[in-house]
Amino acid sequence: MKHLYLIGMGPGGPEYLTIQAIETLKRVDVFFMLEKEGRGKEELLERRHAILRRYLGDSGYRVVTATSPERRTLPGGYQETVRAWHATKRQLFAQLIDTELQDGQNGALLLWGDPTLYDQTLSLIAELAAASAGTLEFEVIPGITSVQMLTAKHKIPLNRVGESILITTGRHVEHCDPSAIDNAIVMLDYNASFRRFTGQDMDIYWGGYLGCPDEVLVSGPVDEVLDALLETKARVREEKGWLLDIYLLRRRRASDD
Amino acid sequence: MKHLYLIGMGPGGPEYLTIQAIETLKRVDVFFMLEKEGRGKEELLERRHAILRRYLGDSGYRVVTATSPERRTLPGGYQETVRAWHATKRQLFAQLIDTELQDGQNGALLLWGDPTLYDQTLSLIAELAAASAGTLEFEVIPGITSVQMLTAKHKIPLNRVGESILITTGRHVEHCDPSAIDNAIVMLDYNASFRRFTGQDMDIYWGGYLGCPDEVLVSGPVDEVLDALLETKARVREEKGWLLDIYLLRRRRASDD
Repeated sequence: MKHLYLIGMGPGGPEYLTIQAIETLKRVDVFFMLEKEGRGKEELLERRHAILRRYLGDSGYRVVTATSPERRTLPGGYQETVRAWHATKRQLFAQLIDTELQDGQNGALLLWGDPTLYDQTLSLIAELAAASAGTLEFEVIPGITSVQMLTAKHKIPLNRVGESILITTGRHVEHCDPSAIDNAIVMLDYNASFRRFTGQDMDIYWGGYLGCPDEVLVSGPVDEVLDALLETKARVREEKGWLLDIYLLRRRRASDD
Repeated sequence: MKHLYLIGMGPGGPEYLTIQAIETLKRVDVFFMLEKEGRGKEELLERRHAILRRYLGDSGYRVVTATSPERRTLPGGYQETVRAWHATKRQLFAQLIDTELQDGQNGALLLWGDPTLYDQTLSLIAELAAASAGTLEFEVIPGITSVQMLTAKHKIPLNRVGESILITTGRHVEHCDPSAIDNAIVMLDYNASFRRFTGQDMDIYWGGYLGCPDEVLVSGPVDEVLDALLETKARVREEKGWLLDIYLLRRRRASDD
């Protein structure tokens, strides 16, 4: 039997780990670190190493680093693209578990935020475990998400009284009817789709590099802060070479006045 | 200047606190503990005391306990009921901060889960801080939510590839069109409104007392597990006298087969 922990590491700083996550780290023999090429790869890997050094010291565990496969756009469209990408990633996980983790050992993946929010690692590992005839088991350790960092730093509730909230993607708000959005967290938006929400009496609460030393916050009515936000995004991306951001769009209610 | 920390304590067990939350506890002079009458009040207060004992020992801080005001239904309807309830709660916070917290001291509220998810304390404290002419400041420390406990324990992603998720209330799903729900977390459901989702090709992932020793999980197609789930809910509520639960409703997709 091999055991794999999917550990939510939160937004990056070691202070965001839970005691449960730290106790789990101490049981791990092999840490697998996968990161995409580009987009701050070195800095993001260093955050994981900093967490291990802080809670485990410099030795007593193995680290196996691999390059996470790129998503290549296929002619069959989005679903086919994602399917092929996941197959490649699943194969990589299968190979790493097979060759780098011994029977009886505990492996772990330190995942950004929470392992269940927009991270397909969990589904891929679940498929491997289901196909393993009981030789691979896994556990999920929750972590603080960038959603929670965003609302904490802006000091706003995720939902006002009686209200629902949608957690969605840039891909969705790029095409949806803007009037259908009342209160939504938007993740993975590479096209600044909040530009579609002017003239809607909406506020935006935006955060970049949340929970990191470079954290930037912008908030206000979309109509008023749009230019400043686009300028801020362009500037910080230019400075660091990459950007991780998230925002909340919220329609004003008559009762808020 | 008085400083107030709204600390997310997670689902109850001390192991779910983050290092950031624990470091914050150490700076606190006065802990305010509010809990409603009934519904496991003693047990829920004891969870908070257990956290303080584990991380701070038995002394060096003050605990001020108060009974959280009940929500009384008013003839003007839901909005008026909530408005009056919040006014009473805000007044109680104002009085506690005024009489129990000295200038220059740090106070704290240990809040279940995360302070920004379906907990109106944050909004009330923000109003008091805004009206304080700079004499009251506050900070939000994120915590693990029951949403994250639910998906971690069921080992499922919150959202499948490209999918959004709605976080909503029992009040909403009690009245909404069931076909409008594809992937939703339902909180605060006192009427087992998942009964409305039979014949919809939907799965349910339910959890009670998540992250506590009494934790119970039920999952499967709504059509198949409905009776067992209703029976389980009735039994555990009978045994403990109260129940905190949450669930995820998920429509099957053709591509899942």
